[in-house]
Amino acid sequence: MRILVAQSGGPTAVINASLVGAVKRARELGHEIFGGIYGIEGVLKDKVIPLLQSELELEKISHTPGAFLGSCRFVLPEFGAEEYDVLFKVFEARKIDAFLYIGGNDSMDSVAKIYLEAQRRHFPMLVIGIPKTIDNDLVETDHCPGFASAAKFLNIVASEFVIDSIAYSKPSISVVETMGRDTGWLAASLKLSERLVKGLKTLIYLPEKPTSDEEILSDVQIFKDGPLLVVVSEGTVDEKGNYLKSTPVLDSFGHPKLGGVGEHVASLLEKIGKVKLVNPGFVQRAASHIVSSVDFQEAQMVASFAVDSVDDGKSGFFVAIDREKKDYLSTAKLVPISKVANKVKKVPQELLDNDMRGFVEYLEPLVDGLPDFLVR
Amino acid sequence: MRILVAQSGGPTAVINASLVGAVKRARELGHEIFGGIYGIEGVLKDKVIPLLQSELELEKISHTPGAFLGSCRFVLPEFGAEEYDVLFKVFEARKIDAFLYIGGNDSMDSVAKIYLEAQRRHFPMLVIGIPKTIDNDLVETDHCPGFASAAKFLNIVASEFVIDSIAYSKPSISVVETMGRDTGWLAASLKLSERLVKGLKTLIYLPEKPTSDEEILSDVQIFKDGPLLVVVSEGTVDEKGNYLKSTPVLDSFGHPKLGGVGEHVASLLEKIGKVKLVNPGFVQRAASHIVSSVDFQEAQMVASFAVDSVDDGKSGFFVAIDREKKDYLSTAKLVPISKVANKVKKVPQELLDNDMRGFVEYLEPLVDGLPDFLVR
Repeated sequence: MRILVAQSGGPTAVINASLVGAVKRARELGHEIFGGIYGIEGVLKDKVIPLLQSELELEKISHTPGAFLGSCRFVLPEFGAEEYDVLFKVFEARKIDAFLYIGGNDSMDSVAKIYLEAQRRHFPMLVIGIPKTIDNDLVETDHCPGFASAAKFLNIVASEFVIDSIAYSKPSISVVETMGRDTGWLAASLKLSERLVKGLKTLIYLPEKPTSDEEILSDVQIFKDGPLLVVVSEGTVDEKGNYLKSTPVLDSFGHPKLGGVGEHVASLLEKIGKVKLVNPGFVQRAASHIVSSVDFQEAQMVASFAVDSVDDGKSGFFVAIDREKKDYLSTAKLVPISKVANKVKKVPQELLDNDMRGFVEYLEPLVDGLPDFLVR
Repeated sequence: MRILVAQSGGPTAVINASLVGAVKRARELGHEIFGGIYGIEGVLKDKVIPLLQSELELEKISHTPGAFLGSCRFVLPEFGAEEYDVLFKVFEARKIDAFLYIGGNDSMDSVAKIYLEAQRRHFPMLVIGIPKTIDNDLVETDHCPGFASAAKFLNIVASEFVIDSIAYSKPSISVVETMGRDTGWLAASLKLSERLVKGLKTLIYLPEKPTSDEEILSDVQIFKDGPLLVVVSEGTVDEKGNYLKSTPVLDSFGHPKLGGVGEHVASLLEKIGKVKLVNPGFVQRAASHIVSSVDFQEAQMVASFAVDSVDDGKSGFFVAIDREKKDYLSTAKLVPISKVANKVKKVPQELLDNDMRGFVEYLEPLVDGLPDFLVR
């Protein structure tokens, strides 16, 4: 079997662990494996290379951030477009028997379209989607590879930042902006910092729960005298659905530009006391130096399972992660791709209730190797 | 002997390793050791506690960022001020035989003043200054504890950020803003990233070398098609000595506010191509999760040596770090405190010449445990 694998969307710290997982499993099963450069956009241009890396090279790649094969934000057009003729000519010329695509919601839309198009053309190629996103917003899976490592990095640097900030007799209010345009999984993950820093209180604002300048100011007033971490997701909105910022900035397409929510909240809180802001930006999805080993292992597992699935003749599926409820253990399973493409999983309200106890219970087994700080 | 130790100025990832180094050595030599809370500002208010932590607690403290005892930015007034009466009453009441102060330039000014005041009063207390600053700008020492760990963190996250940014077929220009108000040691340290990312070119702007928007634009034009990391120190100035930014912002004291140089340069470069910016801010001085072990060991060494020095009856000194030139090995030595207080060591031109070969040679042995990335 000749398997083609490609990477899509924003990289994560473990997207290359998935790539390596697929390569290793394909070799074990005696299949040939190829890489598409710059995702489906590159495949359309016949940018396909054999993956012949040594074991040592694969080991290094799995611990390297970014997308080793290159990535894209290209969305396949609707059926009937000539791109499909081009694409399937490449698949045919390259004699591809199975196509694996590592990506998030948008990429799963491409997987769904390629699968249906292959059926329509009676083209004998199997298609499977492999999950990847720090946003953790894919449906039908307990969580997504990439999320836990980003959450681990954010918790560690936010705790270090807070501990630094409370060194003075008048401590600062610490503000951290996290990624998360439509969902607040990463912002919510910082609840775990309360376990890392004695006495720390977090106030977390996320897209799932519209808020306002007034509400934030009044929340912060209550806690401002102890160590306080204010977390804002980049996609935090007000009741009208506008991003929280005083003067909305438009990007070159005329869309409201993200980022700046942290700065807005920081300058707002300066009315109350000294404020320090950190926005880790792209570093949070690239921090391969501090990946969660559970996340790393699961990123390999889902890709390895995808190879097993095509080896088994399966097509049109997405690889989801299941969790055993008691002692943490995860397994991979197949879900029809149509159930996943273009859907967004918001943080459910029940995980946020009761001071987020449910969320912490959900997150804790995914994030290992956290430090054991001692503050006075 | 009753030894008082306190911490001052901005924390580093290893300032607590120094604290623990002092505590351990004092115990080994049979001395009692006390901590001043919130630096000399707290000592003035008699905030002094015995340091009775267990070995396990000390181990945790040494790996915790921030200043365990608390810190201050308080500068002691000139001689004759009543603060000295208050301060020496505390020293007398507490029967302090030796005072150790862990800090940077400003704190060494306090050390010099307390030493001279003790002499003037014929007060039998020994005084030693212990170096600490991520800025690496203390004179008379090869380097300063805290610097190498901040440099390590910056190199790792900047490399991860760059690798993330080059995943797309049209790579972005990566911009990183570093701390460094008066000196460019941390900005310059990012030259090491060229060893971490294949093909990477860095352009580094620091306070020692005034620049301009035009110069940066023209430099970047040359390299914009490969992986490019543009590094700007927060204190980068133009030929007139003004911080590089279009509209200077004043803080509440009317001083030009720092920060924003990175944003200025990023928006400048948007004329040329896609730009991504990361400003790690306070995280760079607090990243205890990824300290350089050389730095950690030296932070303990200088504090341990300070205890040995007072045990030996020495006073009025600063503990400097010497390096053996061939195979890296460092030792501690005493330098009269008057030679150090209030002086700033800029990055010498000869380290910046020849594509910074001298700087990399200087820095490399200090930063261990760097990752081995593999990019396509």
